[in-house]
Amino acid sequence: MLPLILITNDDGIHAKGIRSLIEIAKPLGEIVVMAPKKPMSSKSHAITTDAPFRIKTLQKEENYWECHIDGTPVDCVKVAMASILQNRQPDLILSGINHGVNASINTIYSGTMAAAIEGSILGINSIGFSLTDFDADADFSQGEEFIRQIIQDVLQNGLPQNVCLNVNIPAAAKADIKGMKVCRQGKAYWTEKAHFREDPYGRDYFWIEGFFHNQDTETDTDTWALENNYISIVPVQHDFTSYPSLQLLKNRVLYA
Amino acid sequence: MLPLILITNDDGIHAKGIRSLIEIAKPLGEIVVMAPKKPMSSKSHAITTDAPFRIKTLQKEENYWECHIDGTPVDCVKVAMASILQNRQPDLILSGINHGVNASINTIYSGTMAAAIEGSILGINSIGFSLTDFDADADFSQGEEFIRQIIQDVLQNGLPQNVCLNVNIPAAAKADIKGMKVCRQGKAYWTEKAHFREDPYGRDYFWIEGFFHNQDTETDTDTWALENNYISIVPVQHDFTSYPSLQLLKNRVLYA
Repeated sequence: MLPLILITNDDGIHAKGIRSLIEIAKPLGEIVVMAPKKPMSSKSHAITTDAPFRIKTLQKEENYWECHIDGTPVDCVKVAMASILQNRQPDLILSGINHGVNASINTIYSGTMAAAIEGSILGINSIGFSLTDFDADADFSQGEEFIRQIIQDVLQNGLPQNVCLNVNIPAAAKADIKGMKVCRQGKAYWTEKAHFREDPYGRDYFWIEGFFHNQDTETDTDTWALENNYISIVPVQHDFTSYPSLQLLKNRVLYA
Repeated sequence: MLPLILITNDDGIHAKGIRSLIEIAKPLGEIVVMAPKKPMSSKSHAITTDAPFRIKTLQKEENYWECHIDGTPVDCVKVAMASILQNRQPDLILSGINHGVNASINTIYSGTMAAAIEGSILGINSIGFSLTDFDADADFSQGEEFIRQIIQDVLQNGLPQNVCLNVNIPAAAKADIKGMKVCRQGKAYWTEKAHFREDPYGRDYFWIEGFFHNQDTETDTDTWALENNYISIVPVQHDFTSYPSLQLLKNRVLYA
């Protein structure tokens, strides 16, 4: 029996990146695509609880069912599970290919990664793919062979329980990609600058522009791997507990 | 000099929970409130990158400035930092008090916790507070004394670098609260059930209803603490790397 593969993304059903991912996955299993109708970048793990959903089927044929909803990437996973998949658990959830890098601290803002993390919460093998090129017309062909290999590896060998993969592909010619590197999430943060404007009615508004600050100079991070033309592969978990802090806090009088 | 305290939440500027938190914090520092104009529950770490912001000041007096924006909780932190706080780093970020529990896997969906985590990413001492009562008219008074103690402790002793606190308060009479417990995040997941409906025009739509599944029977979790009338305090970090999986993946032929 063909493995059941659920595909979603955060750039929306019409993005070039999900088209590329669908083409790679099609020969490997029975495909269900449930993607956001509209772009949902940087929606993180947001879910919709204050509105109902409608599913629109865009294409349905043997072993292929493509739909969209007006929702976030995590909504897509939850809605697919609760509606068209009914009691069938996917063998694999794929998210992406994202237009833009999702390494380092971007993991927490990313809708692409949130869908994969949601899969891992549910105990389903899941992978998020991103290309380090934000262009809507980015060239996804260079990473295709690597993506196919990773998908086949996970279908065959699985992943540790409740762990998904965060795969980032450098936007480079295939010949220049040096290989794959298993890394940890690099330490970084974003700060923002406000750009103040006035609208035609004299009212103030402003845009905020983000600046990435890399705090990590080690060579075992995803940031380093990508800067050095490696595909970065970070095993991702969702336990937010800071274990080293547990005893430290327990030692404080207030919490004793 | 008074410590600078930034306050936000995810239930919106008019929620009873943030009013309670403001009243507790006011005697302890210079207060800046930047909260969402509208309810933003379950918006996780989502940020707005496709629209500008307008700040509306609702109240401004000595050592107190209250504003709202049309944005998510994390937007509130970012916008406050980039606009009205300019180059002043808050000494403390407080988020909440949330109407409803944010323990266990809810941490990842929570806008309340996302704002606190954003603070910890920026290296600012941050605390998210939640009450295990979703009612808009919930009684926040029972936990007030505990919240004041935790805020004072963090102002005085700080937190480990890049770690914030996830504090959940059981909706119980003060006399029944047994104390505070430092815990890890309990293991759990949500599944959803679809409720299919038809609109007056004959078109299908559906709601999804969530069901919480606790996978953890240990007594060191936030779930256990709350069920046993303790205030749960989880130290929260934002490194998603699954460290035990790193070597395991490196041992695979594909990634070697």
